[in-house]
Amino acid sequence: MSKNKQFVEKVTAMEDDFGQWYTDVVKQADLVDYGVVRGTMVIKPYGFALWENIRDELDHQIKATGHKNVSFPLLIPESLLQKEKDHVEGFSPEVAWVTHAGDEKLAERLVVRPTSEVLFCEYYSDNIHSYRDLPMLYNQWSNVVRWEKTTRPFLRSSEFHWQEGHTAHASHEEAAEETEKMLNVYADLCENYLAMPVIKGKKTEKEKFAGAEYTLTIESLMHDGRALQAGTSHHFGTGFAEVFDITYLDENGDRQFVHQTSWGVTTRLIGALIMVHGDNRGLIMPPKIAPTQVMIVPIAQHKEGVLDRAYDLKESLEDVVRVDIDASDNMPGWKFNESEMKGYPVRVEIGPRDIENEQVVLVRRDTGEKESVPFTQLNERIVELLGDVQQNLFDQAVAHREEMTSRVTSMDEFANVLSEKGGFIQAMWCGEETCEEDIREKTGATSRCIPFEQEQVSETCVSCGEAAKEMVYWARAY
Amino acid sequence: MSKNKQFVEKVTAMEDDFGQWYTDVVKQADLVDYGVVRGTMVIKPYGFALWENIRDELDHQIKATGHKNVSFPLLIPESLLQKEKDHVEGFSPEVAWVTHAGDEKLAERLVVRPTSEVLFCEYYSDNIHSYRDLPMLYNQWSNVVRWEKTTRPFLRSSEFHWQEGHTAHASHEEAAEETEKMLNVYADLCENYLAMPVIKGKKTEKEKFAGAEYTLTIESLMHDGRALQAGTSHHFGTGFAEVFDITYLDENGDRQFVHQTSWGVTTRLIGALIMVHGDNRGLIMPPKIAPTQVMIVPIAQHKEGVLDRAYDLKESLEDVVRVDIDASDNMPGWKFNESEMKGYPVRVEIGPRDIENEQVVLVRRDTGEKESVPFTQLNERIVELLGDVQQNLFDQAVAHREEMTSRVTSMDEFANVLSEKGGFIQAMWCGEETCEEDIREKTGATSRCIPFEQEQVSETCVSCGEAAKEMVYWARAY
Repeated sequence: MSKNKQFVEKVTAMEDDFGQWYTDVVKQADLVDYGVVRGTMVIKPYGFALWENIRDELDHQIKATGHKNVSFPLLIPESLLQKEKDHVEGFSPEVAWVTHAGDEKLAERLVVRPTSEVLFCEYYSDNIHSYRDLPMLYNQWSNVVRWEKTTRPFLRSSEFHWQEGHTAHASHEEAAEETEKMLNVYADLCENYLAMPVIKGKKTEKEKFAGAEYTLTIESLMHDGRALQAGTSHHFGTGFAEVFDITYLDENGDRQFVHQTSWGVTTRLIGALIMVHGDNRGLIMPPKIAPTQVMIVPIAQHKEGVLDRAYDLKESLEDVVRVDIDASDNMPGWKFNESEMKGYPVRVEIGPRDIENEQVVLVRRDTGEKESVPFTQLNERIVELLGDVQQNLFDQAVAHREEMTSRVTSMDEFANVLSEKGGFIQAMWCGEETCEEDIREKTGATSRCIPFEQEQVSETCVSCGEAAKEMVYWARAY
Repeated sequence: MSKNKQFVEKVTAMEDDFGQWYTDVVKQADLVDYGVVRGTMVIKPYGFALWENIRDELDHQIKATGHKNVSFPLLIPESLLQKEKDHVEGFSPEVAWVTHAGDEKLAERLVVRPTSEVLFCEYYSDNIHSYRDLPMLYNQWSNVVRWEKTTRPFLRSSEFHWQEGHTAHASHEEAAEETEKMLNVYADLCENYLAMPVIKGKKTEKEKFAGAEYTLTIESLMHDGRALQAGTSHHFGTGFAEVFDITYLDENGDRQFVHQTSWGVTTRLIGALIMVHGDNRGLIMPPKIAPTQVMIVPIAQHKEGVLDRAYDLKESLEDVVRVDIDASDNMPGWKFNESEMKGYPVRVEIGPRDIENEQVVLVRRDTGEKESVPFTQLNERIVELLGDVQQNLFDQAVAHREEMTSRVTSMDEFANVLSEKGGFIQAMWCGEETCEEDIREKTGATSRCIPFEQEQVSETCVSCGEAAKEMVYWARAY
């Protein structure tokens, strides 16, 4: 509990200025502070505890699917980064260069990793010899640096945390399975832990990762109707393997190139979480990854027995949930505000009258609903309630996304819907990059993905009117 | 299991060349590979799993003592690093400089953090206002870069992983308690988890951390008789607070400087672990932090029922230990060697005759002792055995250290013992840096620490013959 803040400042209403609302919330909920270097952030205890919960859950899934954690170096020689042409073109404009060590100029400049494909490739080239070495399923949790022009905490920062999986396989098909498997792991994390529905699909050629054969993505919709790419999984085919000479001897003794994938999610997920679930009173944490699931707020805590009883409840609740108590000398009203700003899923209020009646008052953060619950049923009811909150947050987000998803069949309609309502636009596309570019210029929307679940919105491309190839989700995006 | 290596290469005998033995072991036990950039390392799955176990245990202790994890940026502006004079002098020669981002030259050079004191200070200066904000107890797990001239995996690398705790307190005394508390947490980790005895003490002025009022340290002794600093904890007094203007209003409304500490341990601990417990057949992992505590090796696994039974045992053992099975088609002898190289604390051998007799053979890695154990008693016996291995490793290390610790009263004796035997030298010191320097020049030994547990070896300084102030542990060190 922060004891020194004597009041919680109001956040800007999201209807008035969504960007300012976001900045207010991340600051006032004590998630981050700005770093000294432009675009960097200090992730404070509450924000980092959230990241630890997301990370630990995902790490568990990554290991359960057979991957092993490793650690590769931070710095990459310029010559190594330049080996794969598309890849270096994609990242060069935004990398930080180390040129000196101590007083000495380095013989070769080093890049602070923006991603680590080339390092893993160099390693695989040395360490993969036979089909018996495959698949090689590695992952690392690390920090990367990308010098972004405009930055915002979690959403786009010069440095961020992520995990990057890098795998090598004997066949194109097996790598394709891996690419999809990890996309599904991400989708499961988003939907079942972050309570954030996602649309699974494939990126267009224009939007795919620099150097990939194709990129799969999960796309989510924020409260303001803008989309956010929540995670990507790339199939490299043999592209990197040919450049880095990563080969193996197959069972017949023939030399073959390996087929590779990479996949990652970042601290961006925290930004998404805020923008999907937050409201004008602050954060709302999905119970499954909330650092504190239940906050106990004693009422009239100076009265005899209140604090003792509150601590007893805490001790008992610790067996079933992540619980904390706000025993600071702030006023209850302040504590309620703070508890809403931090987004604790359930608040427990306990005062002298409650103790007399052998009960507490429970307040849900998502709906604001209150209920009285006898001491004897508290643990059971809280666990149940947390399940309800988790489910309700997901259902609300799905409902919001459905409300904010529009099917359009003409460019006029496209532009009108996007400017008046925003959200996801479902529209048919011929597959040509010129049309994709045309849509972006006329509406500001980019293609988010070609969804796995296709629907026939119309027969023709929304831009050129030629025969349509597939339905695409379009949106203005973070 | 690596399936492609058809034999385990022999390691150099430690008696012949300890340095080469170390390098052979870290490579052949699959802990690391060399990175592309000089002095960096790729930590491979087995090495990283070991680090994860050490990290998770220590993280648990750090949180249990009231600290919260945070994340501060990787890059530090030059002007910020230069604020504290001793600190910048200590680190400048070995920092990596970022001078450009994309195509543009930065207005100010940035340092890739060698340690993060100045960032935490800048944050504390903005975020500490009142005595109610104190103590502020932060920790971060991160990677740091120090451009070392000579490098060796884990022991001294251009980049390494560590945790750095940074705390701010209302009084000198409270900061002193914190400094000692965290040293004790480190000592507990080393002794009770890594089975590595340490000597607790204070660094001399000459050897203390750049910018600290004093530095506490734990010092351990390696197999070759050289010492290794395993962890340090620094009391900064108000030194940084005065430079960075970190003040708080006390209960009387008076403005006061905060008192700070910092403390850290690194991936160096892995190097220490290897050099304390390893032997000429490879690693020996202390059971408590071993990624795999028990390795099952099937004998004549092509015979009917052997593999099935081995997998049954594995499934049953999974309830109580971290267990794996080597069902590769390598020969049993190869598997035994591999199992010794990797240092699995206990090996379970099971073949057709064992199955007939309803038993297995257990082999301890530390002593090589074998015993037959009935299936019905296996789980219980293994848990017991792992406890024995853990204790024996610690006892052996203590015995080795005692054997390699000498008390000397003259410089001749000092030089002779050090060159003939090595190890820790206990000798009296007057407290003057000139004598410390004299000892280093004549013997190559540095002061390791002024131990908390003092013993009176003689009346006078071993170097100058003046009245002695305290007993110091000296050694050649990593």
